[in-house]
Amino acid sequence: MQAANPYIFKTKPYVPGKPIDEVRRELGLKSVIKLASNENPYPPSPKVLAAMARAAREVNRYPDGGCFILRRGLARKFNVDDDQLLFGNGSDEIICLAVRAFAAKGGEVIIAKPSFLVYEIASILSGARLHQVPLQSFRYDLQAMRAKVNGRTRIIFIGNPDNPAGTYITQRQAEDFLRSVPKNILVFFDEAYFEYVHADDYPDTLGLMKKYPNLMVARTFSKMYGLAGLRIGYGIARRDIIDILNRLREPFNVNSMAQAAAAAVLADEPYYRKIAQEIHAQRLYLYRSLKAMNIAFEESFTNFILVRAGADSSVIADALLNKGVIVRDMAVWGLKGYIRTSIGTPAENKRFIKTLGEIL
Amino acid sequence: MQAANPYIFKTKPYVPGKPIDEVRRELGLKSVIKLASNENPYPPSPKVLAAMARAAREVNRYPDGGCFILRRGLARKFNVDDDQLLFGNGSDEIICLAVRAFAAKGGEVIIAKPSFLVYEIASILSGARLHQVPLQSFRYDLQAMRAKVNGRTRIIFIGNPDNPAGTYITQRQAEDFLRSVPKNILVFFDEAYFEYVHADDYPDTLGLMKKYPNLMVARTFSKMYGLAGLRIGYGIARRDIIDILNRLREPFNVNSMAQAAAAAVLADEPYYRKIAQEIHAQRLYLYRSLKAMNIAFEESFTNFILVRAGADSSVIADALLNKGVIVRDMAVWGLKGYIRTSIGTPAENKRFIKTLGEIL
Repeated sequence: MQAANPYIFKTKPYVPGKPIDEVRRELGLKSVIKLASNENPYPPSPKVLAAMARAAREVNRYPDGGCFILRRGLARKFNVDDDQLLFGNGSDEIICLAVRAFAAKGGEVIIAKPSFLVYEIASILSGARLHQVPLQSFRYDLQAMRAKVNGRTRIIFIGNPDNPAGTYITQRQAEDFLRSVPKNILVFFDEAYFEYVHADDYPDTLGLMKKYPNLMVARTFSKMYGLAGLRIGYGIARRDIIDILNRLREPFNVNSMAQAAAAAVLADEPYYRKIAQEIHAQRLYLYRSLKAMNIAFEESFTNFILVRAGADSSVIADALLNKGVIVRDMAVWGLKGYIRTSIGTPAENKRFIKTLGEIL
Repeated sequence: MQAANPYIFKTKPYVPGKPIDEVRRELGLKSVIKLASNENPYPPSPKVLAAMARAAREVNRYPDGGCFILRRGLARKFNVDDDQLLFGNGSDEIICLAVRAFAAKGGEVIIAKPSFLVYEIASILSGARLHQVPLQSFRYDLQAMRAKVNGRTRIIFIGNPDNPAGTYITQRQAEDFLRSVPKNILVFFDEAYFEYVHADDYPDTLGLMKKYPNLMVARTFSKMYGLAGLRIGYGIARRDIIDILNRLREPFNVNSMAQAAAAAVLADEPYYRKIAQEIHAQRLYLYRSLKAMNIAFEESFTNFILVRAGADSSVIADALLNKGVIVRDMAVWGLKGYIRTSIGTPAENKRFIKTLGEIL
């Protein structure tokens, strides 16, 4: 077969991970905990489960391609217009649509290094040219990113808070950056973890959008709201940008179960606020425990922590896996010596700390 | 904003339909039936609902990006290798991936006219050149399609059975066509409705695949298996084709609820066979009723029927809508005078016939 798209071969094919049950069976372990994907460790609230049970009886029908009910709910929550919203099969899809729309062959994309893998993969697959700007002390080097801007630049991705360090850029940094960038370049704030942030100077991107028409925000129900398995994220931008991305998406890209669950989540905020508080408390527990073990880490504004595990993080991640604790070895991301752990339930975090202590 | 992808503006933006509840409220109707999207009119089986309830408690976890369990189930069912399968967010995504991989800018795509809208939209968005070959007496004109093949041809889509007529091409026609087409052109059989076909000469495409490496098949859980709302379809081809498409997809393109439901469907075939039998019986009921009313139609091998409604199908479709019966006006597809009705439950079909009689 002659592949018309030569960029495909610049990426590695996706290697499917085995289900957690398979890992358990293979390693002969009674229990395996997963702290590798920055998931909310709790099941959906009873109200969300009830909404899903209702939706289950109607999955024989196609989803609402316009996400009518959810759109209305989010538009009210954020005080934006209906047509400023775009829904995706996870916020991954929002990222991919933006790249395909604005940064196809010949366009340039600026991202941090390391950062969320999808920015890079989506850019390569579209034939965009990628500029990767190293983090400085695990923070975005916005000046260096600005210096990469040229006439072919189409998109700048800013994970805020970012992954894998969990740090954020402030309102002032965001505004200075936006002011310095030409208005025909899309500045894409990926705020997948924004519900976890407690910081007064975290940017009000929806406010900034009124002044900077080239600002786009993506968020997700995968992290704080615990719907990672259902795949639903959304983008917010001015309607001319949303209109373009909307033409590019598949008509039924968001499944009906995700729509029903997300709408129910919005009506059950207290359940999720309580979880956010617990994750915050557990973050402090992990900080204390790591300090007591003399292990360095980055202060995080998310539900994960980047931990300096020592010289060979692959060995440590493997040793943890063999004891049933799955974390992310960051060597793959170019951060040798680091692992990233998600903040789980109190019992899971305790087990992580205990197991790490046994290994080191 | 400067859109780097100029093809986007060649398509119309998707206009979201209102949910059925909204239609009901607006028209002040007690009950509205939808016979417009060729859905299975029944909810999932009790076993499938149970599997979904279990999956609901784990949607906080990301889906298995490799669809491990479902892949194994389908590979066994169809006697193909694991790596001959690709899963998509509906078979829509399989179609879009194939176009993006093989028929990007400059490539040519051959389809029938009219045919399933996604072939056309996906091709336009990728910047492919489209050849649309008119149906002859509502059947594929394979000779005319063959005549459009040239050195730039990348994909030929064959809906089998096709939409909107519900007719099919035979094993012999399929093989003659495949023999005549150069092996570097992807011949894409969209078999979304294949579970509804009862015909000895319907092509064994998986058998033909051994001889014709450029043959690809797409199928779906949306039609016979009633999972349209969950979005899950799959492609079957030789592993080198699947490998290319697999590189192009998003890592978590298929949600966990769809995976759980589809795996449960495979384990509960008798429930769905019974529905298929009923749809078949109801098709005969609709034939008889339409004949009795002197209304012409196409004999269908699917769960929908193309009906010659008369000169102005828009008026008829509107009149049906106002009485709470949603069907598809085919004028939009270039078939003035035709409506397409899905085969619903016995009560729905009876209401369709009764309402149509009142209108005409």
